[in-house]
Amino acid sequence: MDTKTVKAYGTESAQADLKQFNINRRLVTANDIEIDILYCGVCHSDLHFARNDWGMTQYPVVPGHEIVGRVTNVGSGVTKYKLGELVAVGCLVDSCRTCQNCKDDLEQYCPEWVGTYGGFDKHLNSPTHGGYSETIVVDEAFVLRVPENLDQAGIAPVLCAGITTWSPLKHWNVGKDSKVAVVGLGGLGHMAIKLAHALGAHVTLFSRSAGKIEDAKALGADEVIISTKEDQMEKAMGRFDVIIDTVPYAHDLNPYVNTLNTDGTLVVVGYLGPLDPMLMTVPMIMGRKSVAGSLIGGIAETQELLDFCGKHNITSDVEVINIQDINEAYERMLKSDVHYRFVIDMKSLKQ
Amino acid sequence: MDTKTVKAYGTESAQADLKQFNINRRLVTANDIEIDILYCGVCHSDLHFARNDWGMTQYPVVPGHEIVGRVTNVGSGVTKYKLGELVAVGCLVDSCRTCQNCKDDLEQYCPEWVGTYGGFDKHLNSPTHGGYSETIVVDEAFVLRVPENLDQAGIAPVLCAGITTWSPLKHWNVGKDSKVAVVGLGGLGHMAIKLAHALGAHVTLFSRSAGKIEDAKALGADEVIISTKEDQMEKAMGRFDVIIDTVPYAHDLNPYVNTLNTDGTLVVVGYLGPLDPMLMTVPMIMGRKSVAGSLIGGIAETQELLDFCGKHNITSDVEVINIQDINEAYERMLKSDVHYRFVIDMKSLKQ
Repeated sequence: MDTKTVKAYGTESAQADLKQFNINRRLVTANDIEIDILYCGVCHSDLHFARNDWGMTQYPVVPGHEIVGRVTNVGSGVTKYKLGELVAVGCLVDSCRTCQNCKDDLEQYCPEWVGTYGGFDKHLNSPTHGGYSETIVVDEAFVLRVPENLDQAGIAPVLCAGITTWSPLKHWNVGKDSKVAVVGLGGLGHMAIKLAHALGAHVTLFSRSAGKIEDAKALGADEVIISTKEDQMEKAMGRFDVIIDTVPYAHDLNPYVNTLNTDGTLVVVGYLGPLDPMLMTVPMIMGRKSVAGSLIGGIAETQELLDFCGKHNITSDVEVINIQDINEAYERMLKSDVHYRFVIDMKSLKQ
Repeated sequence: MDTKTVKAYGTESAQADLKQFNINRRLVTANDIEIDILYCGVCHSDLHFARNDWGMTQYPVVPGHEIVGRVTNVGSGVTKYKLGELVAVGCLVDSCRTCQNCKDDLEQYCPEWVGTYGGFDKHLNSPTHGGYSETIVVDEAFVLRVPENLDQAGIAPVLCAGITTWSPLKHWNVGKDSKVAVVGLGGLGHMAIKLAHALGAHVTLFSRSAGKIEDAKALGADEVIISTKEDQMEKAMGRFDVIIDTVPYAHDLNPYVNTLNTDGTLVVVGYLGPLDPMLMTVPMIMGRKSVAGSLIGGIAETQELLDFCGKHNITSDVEVINIQDINEAYERMLKSDVHYRFVIDMKSLKQ
């Protein structure tokens, strides 16, 4: 099919730095929208994927799934969006649309969902490429509307870090007076605090570092518990309805399970791997507690979040970089040296 | 306070066989009911407790928390029960009655709940003694009403094995057309199958042994999956809404988590210990799946279950024994050589 060549940033191997090269975008088909990308957030998954940490990367790869831009072209059948509108694309650009998950607005659990990068573009018969590029072409069913009142760079991380924490907060019924705790204060954790606070919950951050107390409170936390202090953990026993655990590496969940109230749920959103050390069943049985996982969110739910952010004027706290700084940004991310998310100003690619 | 001496069966040390001795029961206080015990089920916990497997037993111990009997005396303030009524006592005989769990009819999660044996009897200022005895005296708030149409021996295990599986089935909304799986076919597992079937669910048993297929179907299972057969487990991927895992020893939960549908929950009700091998988070994240624990059930919920059993004519499949056979029964339980629960005919103690 006809394509258009656009500039992008990506890598051709797990060992190589990211660099500029050209990719092909399809021309809009009937239901497609072409988006001029203004900002793209930098997610840890981008780094994992670029470096093939999950052993499934096909090269070349162009990362980026926290995309904010403006509509520059629409297909003949597009009904939801007009030229010039501020829109966004998150982690997925298609799904089967017929399975029960798709029918339930849970496209993220569709076995055939198509990732914004590293998925399979059925039109081009090749891997999808993400938002580290000038433009992207996406079926309107997977495009979100962005409230115009929000900071455009700051909204980008809402598309992944935001929805990844919003979806479990909503699914486990967090609202006014809920007792929510957040484990870890990174890209996901800082959004979890902001969103839980805006939902009316009492929000506690678990952190290993007393240095984060002021930051957490500024983001909306009511309280910080230093998880290395036994007396503080003891006092927190049985307190929380929902814990959003954003820590991306193996860590002991048992002390946090102990801080759940009856019927409480600890939701793992950041860590892919075995629960090491082993989870103990007794504290779960003695209080009907759950440990669960949750993956990003569906399209309707992501729109709900963007609308909520518009109403409550919530965006991510970001550090805006040029695309040429992406390799340095990756190194800083590995050291957790970012408050709280890098966002690429895509003007830097277009110059 | 005044007491009455009654015959009981129990043990004075972890190493000794159970034998007959006398214990003191309190005389009824205002809210108490005295029950002449007709049948008492034999739970694995009885054995663990008698042998101090959990390191918390105070001797002498009189086990038994699946108690069915008739009211023989009532205190001056008793309003719910009359002389001669068929009643039951399960795993707990008191709780604080003021905490949120107690207010929510979740007495089993009250931090101060009093076990039917091995708890603390505030009237006698000594450990509580269970149902391997002629009589028991219990506050009416913790006494259940038993439908007269049911087999009296068969109803006894409903008080522990039954409610332990009923409570999670109800909490996780099992009903018509739910897809339920049960892991393990023992005392708990056979009740889980009967109850889930009666609730209208499609019921699958996971078993390591093809020898259990016919038994499981007779109990109400629609299907048996042999968990050691990889092709059968593969075909079961993503199928179940709720899995009740009744296996009492360490085992790999990961293959069962894989058989949960989106938003499915695996509930551990039989195993106290670390999840070895380690639980993997990816299958939980890729489908918002939960692993949870659940402990017996509250008093109101146990009454609901007894009423349900009366309506649907459900009892446990039991092997009735004399109290003098209890030590042999324990040995057979350790070999899983029972279909599916021993119940003591307490006439044998009274002779």
